[in-house]
Amino acid sequence: MEELIARIRKDGKALNSDVLMVDSFLNHLVDPMLMKKIGDEFASHFAKCGITRVATIESSGIAPAVMAALALNVPLLIMKKASSSILSDDVCLTTQVHSFTKNTDYMLMCKRQFLTPGENVLFIDDFLANGEAGFGAARLIEEAGCHVAGIGIVIEKSFQDGAKKLEKAGYEVYSLAKIAKLDNGVIEFA
Amino acid sequence: MEELIARIRKDGKALNSDVLMVDSFLNHLVDPMLMKKIGDEFASHFAKCGITRVATIESSGIAPAVMAALALNVPLLIMKKASSSILSDDVCLTTQVHSFTKNTDYMLMCKRQFLTPGENVLFIDDFLANGEAGFGAARLIEEAGCHVAGIGIVIEKSFQDGAKKLEKAGYEVYSLAKIAKLDNGVIEFA
Repeated sequence: MEELIARIRKDGKALNSDVLMVDSFLNHLVDPMLMKKIGDEFASHFAKCGITRVATIESSGIAPAVMAALALNVPLLIMKKASSSILSDDVCLTTQVHSFTKNTDYMLMCKRQFLTPGENVLFIDDFLANGEAGFGAARLIEEAGCHVAGIGIVIEKSFQDGAKKLEKAGYEVYSLAKIAKLDNGVIEFA
Repeated sequence: MEELIARIRKDGKALNSDVLMVDSFLNHLVDPMLMKKIGDEFASHFAKCGITRVATIESSGIAPAVMAALALNVPLLIMKKASSSILSDDVCLTTQVHSFTKNTDYMLMCKRQFLTPGENVLFIDDFLANGEAGFGAARLIEEAGCHVAGIGIVIEKSFQDGAKKLEKAGYEVYSLAKIAKLDNGVIEFA
């Protein structure tokens, strides 16, 4: 997506070989017009997939995901993060996810009543690196008896192996910007 | 806002005299079309106030707030919650907020660079009860040298004193639905 790539070139800040700061337009200060275009792009790409639900993980994925859900005219499921080690029960689905960024584990959860069997789910997130969040969301969706119709990513760190692993597992990954390399002050696109 | 009130009547669940569950359309499963209408309503109400920035607190406020920011064509600032007791410094503004709902304190923070002096800020949140979050956001906004142009609330618990306290402190509070009383299975609007 050209406009997103131009914005990353202009306002993104690579701190080192791993960290790309985009908090001036994506996840702290948010450009709602750009979010609308990102949502429209995801909706357009997955238009023929019969999506019945968009899902994301709180909180950085919410702005682009709600715009995609608006464009697709379907509900948005916000999966919640919990620090305590809770187990799936009659009310909630849970799965443990490892965050390499923060070097911690968290529980990802959603109420079963909001993910009833048969939903065709588009999962959207702001970043894809190691794929842990994507696999976690997919586990919840599939444990609920639903189908992962696709994974929409705003910024993919293509130098990490998340996208490859998700695709190898059979998921379609559609990333709007792919970063090939980061270094202090250096952003190379794939 | 008639459509919101009708939706609360239809899908809201009052658990006791304090808790109103609206997680089937507002903060877990989200109705993006309703969020769009809510955002448009806030934008329309504050249209002549010269708003230059919308602000909210992660994560339940993001969906309605990004729609208001879109309608007003201004950036959205997502204030972050941190558990650790950090202090304001050259980079970040912070303030301590007490959550009566969870009976804990948290630090509310945002980077100074995203709230430069002179901004005219509309603060939006999903719920207003005791007003602690609203006052916390206002402290950050004012400490940054900015002006609180108004406070937009999706659901106000009018039987608690947050709205009164905020108005007494000089803030304009615009709530789309006002709840006069809750009890197990009972929702009365003001």
